[in-house]
Amino acid sequence: MNLTDADIARAHQLEPMEVIAERAGIDPQFVVGYGRDKAKIDVAALPEQPRKGKLVLVTAMSPTPAGEGKSTVLIGLADAVRATGARTIVAIREPSLGPVFGIKGGAAGGGYAQIVPMEDINLHFTGDLHAIAAANNSLAALIDAHIHHGNELSIDPRKVTWRRCLDVNDRNLRHIVTGLGGVAHGVPAESGFDITAASEIMAVLCLASDLTDLKERLARIVIGQTYAGTPVTVSDLKAQGALTALLRDALSPNLVQTLGGTPAIVHGGPFGNIAHGCNSLIATDTALRHADVVLTEAGFGSDLGAEKFFDIKSRAGDLDVSAVVMVATIRSLKFNGGAAKDELQQENLAALQAGLVNLARHCDNIQKFGPTPTIALNHFIHDTDAEVELVQRWAEDRGLRAVLTKVWAEGGAGAAELADVVLASVVDKRSAPLYDPAAGTLASLQTIAREIYGASDVELSPQAQKDLKIIQDNGWDTLPVCISKTQYSFSDDPRKLGAPSGHTVKVRSLVPRTGAGFVVAMTGDVMTLPGLSKRPAAQGIDVDAEGNITGLF
Amino acid sequence: MNLTDADIARAHQLEPMEVIAERAGIDPQFVVGYGRDKAKIDVAALPEQPRKGKLVLVTAMSPTPAGEGKSTVLIGLADAVRATGARTIVAIREPSLGPVFGIKGGAAGGGYAQIVPMEDINLHFTGDLHAIAAANNSLAALIDAHIHHGNELSIDPRKVTWRRCLDVNDRNLRHIVTGLGGVAHGVPAESGFDITAASEIMAVLCLASDLTDLKERLARIVIGQTYAGTPVTVSDLKAQGALTALLRDALSPNLVQTLGGTPAIVHGGPFGNIAHGCNSLIATDTALRHADVVLTEAGFGSDLGAEKFFDIKSRAGDLDVSAVVMVATIRSLKFNGGAAKDELQQENLAALQAGLVNLARHCDNIQKFGPTPTIALNHFIHDTDAEVELVQRWAEDRGLRAVLTKVWAEGGAGAAELADVVLASVVDKRSAPLYDPAAGTLASLQTIAREIYGASDVELSPQAQKDLKIIQDNGWDTLPVCISKTQYSFSDDPRKLGAPSGHTVKVRSLVPRTGAGFVVAMTGDVMTLPGLSKRPAAQGIDVDAEGNITGLF
Repeated sequence: MNLTDADIARAHQLEPMEVIAERAGIDPQFVVGYGRDKAKIDVAALPEQPRKGKLVLVTAMSPTPAGEGKSTVLIGLADAVRATGARTIVAIREPSLGPVFGIKGGAAGGGYAQIVPMEDINLHFTGDLHAIAAANNSLAALIDAHIHHGNELSIDPRKVTWRRCLDVNDRNLRHIVTGLGGVAHGVPAESGFDITAASEIMAVLCLASDLTDLKERLARIVIGQTYAGTPVTVSDLKAQGALTALLRDALSPNLVQTLGGTPAIVHGGPFGNIAHGCNSLIATDTALRHADVVLTEAGFGSDLGAEKFFDIKSRAGDLDVSAVVMVATIRSLKFNGGAAKDELQQENLAALQAGLVNLARHCDNIQKFGPTPTIALNHFIHDTDAEVELVQRWAEDRGLRAVLTKVWAEGGAGAAELADVVLASVVDKRSAPLYDPAAGTLASLQTIAREIYGASDVELSPQAQKDLKIIQDNGWDTLPVCISKTQYSFSDDPRKLGAPSGHTVKVRSLVPRTGAGFVVAMTGDVMTLPGLSKRPAAQGIDVDAEGNITGLF
Repeated sequence: MNLTDADIARAHQLEPMEVIAERAGIDPQFVVGYGRDKAKIDVAALPEQPRKGKLVLVTAMSPTPAGEGKSTVLIGLADAVRATGARTIVAIREPSLGPVFGIKGGAAGGGYAQIVPMEDINLHFTGDLHAIAAANNSLAALIDAHIHHGNELSIDPRKVTWRRCLDVNDRNLRHIVTGLGGVAHGVPAESGFDITAASEIMAVLCLASDLTDLKERLARIVIGQTYAGTPVTVSDLKAQGALTALLRDALSPNLVQTLGGTPAIVHGGPFGNIAHGCNSLIATDTALRHADVVLTEAGFGSDLGAEKFFDIKSRAGDLDVSAVVMVATIRSLKFNGGAAKDELQQENLAALQAGLVNLARHCDNIQKFGPTPTIALNHFIHDTDAEVELVQRWAEDRGLRAVLTKVWAEGGAGAAELADVVLASVVDKRSAPLYDPAAGTLASLQTIAREIYGASDVELSPQAQKDLKIIQDNGWDTLPVCISKTQYSFSDDPRKLGAPSGHTVKVRSLVPRTGAGFVVAMTGDVMTLPGLSKRPAAQGIDVDAEGNITGLF
């Protein structure tokens, strides 16, 4: 009988949170329970201590639609690193609820490399995303109420850029008209919802260093323009205090555990394709102050996640990456080498060989930030020995190590060799960002497009050109850029697999995120609010009389 | 210096949750922390034991817009009852977040009669309302996705009655159009948001006896009709399992404490005017199984809250009310006697005398359900001795007791006499509902209108007549009715103060709530989503670097 992720998690006996806290080097008095087996770390009350840990960043090659198990490898690797005797903490994103109801399979690892309690983490967890949505939507209400009650600030209702958000997959909410029904019910306006993970408030929460910084960042958020074209900020609406109150508890990082008993800080969850894709800076910082080794991840492929990790998060938080793990799979290599989606389980050395260009590009890119990556070849049961050997030989030829890992089946034991190789790869050299944002938005975009995506050019749509003008006029063009792009290709076209080059990156629009401190460049058809499929996973979810949830994984 | 509610709460040293749990007669192992000083009771795990407590219902006369301190009296009275040696538990509603950002002043008592931690309770608390909104809005997404993907059930998009909800005061969301932007973005539809407290899912959660009953009630919810006019339910969409999963933790009642150290179960929060207005049945039931005396409340005046408590909640949960406390204030009596809103601080015996008709009607009404109420005259500093004496003499002449209480200033000590009188009034006689719903929706409405509101007739709008036909055709006309009505008058016109009679209750529409198990009758202009004022309280809320929140109260 094959055990499911849920079977494995349910059979597991969790350790008390006090034990996990002590294992993390954190005095349990600063760890506050939020339901059974989950807690928040009261960072404001923690005794001050310097960072001491080495930061290991786990990223990946371009994925198939099924995902390549980046989190799973990270979790198994963390358990393996802890087995070497190092005090180890995992720092990863918290999952979004919306997609859980769309596609079966939450986001907390799998097999014997999971973070638990998985149901809780994938449903409301400790309420952080709900708090972000409440802050986001309270701000929307304050804007519309201001316009309704005489509009003292002369906000142009057609130029309100602040959207609402919910953690739900609901395509019907992407484009809406509000304020209908007559004078008593507001001023009619075009609006729309994004998924909560895409809210600027999520980015702000993930980049804030403390409550004071959080409030200052919130105050700087631009929500639209006046009729005269002047930006209107949260501070103009005097809303930053109220929003900070709503986010106070959400700013505290969440502590849970892996199946192997490694402390895991799971906090903040911007998407990797439509946002900056890294867990909160506070989570990473707290982990670095208490552990010898901190394992963290960056969303989707390294073109999206790792680039933003180095250029946005590390810059904001003064982080050093001491080692990088590049997760690859045989199936994704074959997919990138041209094999059809439904033929990935068959041995195909030609496609595999062809797909290695994708992995090569990802590995080359990482070295532009400093570290030489270790490839973690995440094992799937259909992989053949010949296929594995081909990848390992290829890596060796390039001076890299590709280590086979079996964390799904074996947990930490399946990553023992990987742990040794990664720990041996740790360097003291500082990692560095790719570009200097002082050169301006367009130059930053061009550098990323050329160096990371292999593109020859960046093309701004007429809308993006108008946006750039506003960004330049307001002095925001020295902020780093956060590119919203498909995760399936280095280009902005999800069908261009492998390692496309010479293409043009088409930017549809540029959105200043002055609270987060970056400019979002929207490319291709990236959706900021997913929809549900014809047979949504929600229909298979159930709860028995004792409260056991099934069908979530 | 006058201390504010916030000053008093902040200076207070809370007792550990284990102490509070034991004081409630609940083994601390079944009490799970959700942040500091708040917890959920794992009712599914509690050892089975019969109800043993006496239930005291606190209700009120018709309020002024400032409110008459019903919760404050309840909390002070509970501390006083506990001081007599009785094991005492408070069971009240949890507040809604939206209004907190609109009007300063949360809903957890005041002065020395508060429930703490007040900031937490008034912000996200343990996440129950967010969970309800997530379930509500996931259902909306499932409906629209079904229509988008071919509409196998033939749902008429124009007859979807399920609305979205958020816990935010945002008039712009009352009437919206969704699904704009083209084929990829859903099917255009009229929709709208209610405040979360008005969602049928809130009512379902508050009336469910356990997880199984919750799931069955959710399955029965009607979300609209097919083109052929057949009702479409949650069960047709196979969504009840997923919604129950989202609500699993929210169904567990929350435990906190009063400033006097009395255990308080604060759980479920439907509004008293637009919904049935009582805390969850599970909260009341849990309290009755562990305490000698349970104090609970019913929203706004007794015409709204108490009537629904007896006719909806007590019927659903087989509850007996052993005593009733009728909260009255000198200022509200004067207001109901014709005094202007800004002159309520001046002695005015004539207006006071005139306003007693309102209190008389409320007291007479309660006796139709069984108990003889004790009047709690909630003291305000501007009340004069002559005014207090007038009310007490009037009560005595009617065979009632009007006890002066000073809970805001003195906490439990200010309700010592009230506690004695209320405990002496406890009867073993069963309380009873007012009407038999088997007589049909219209007959139920007429009975409430005549017996409670003093009306001579009920008038159905053309829409309500159509609604009634559908309700009758589907056999829902034997459900109890839940009247949505202004809290300021026995009539559906907030300007008709005192004790109006002979008026006609105009019903705009009738909404079957088959999951909750009642039919909502909308009267007058009751809003199901409040808006923010020109100077919203949100602008005065702030947080300091240590996380202390100010301006919430």
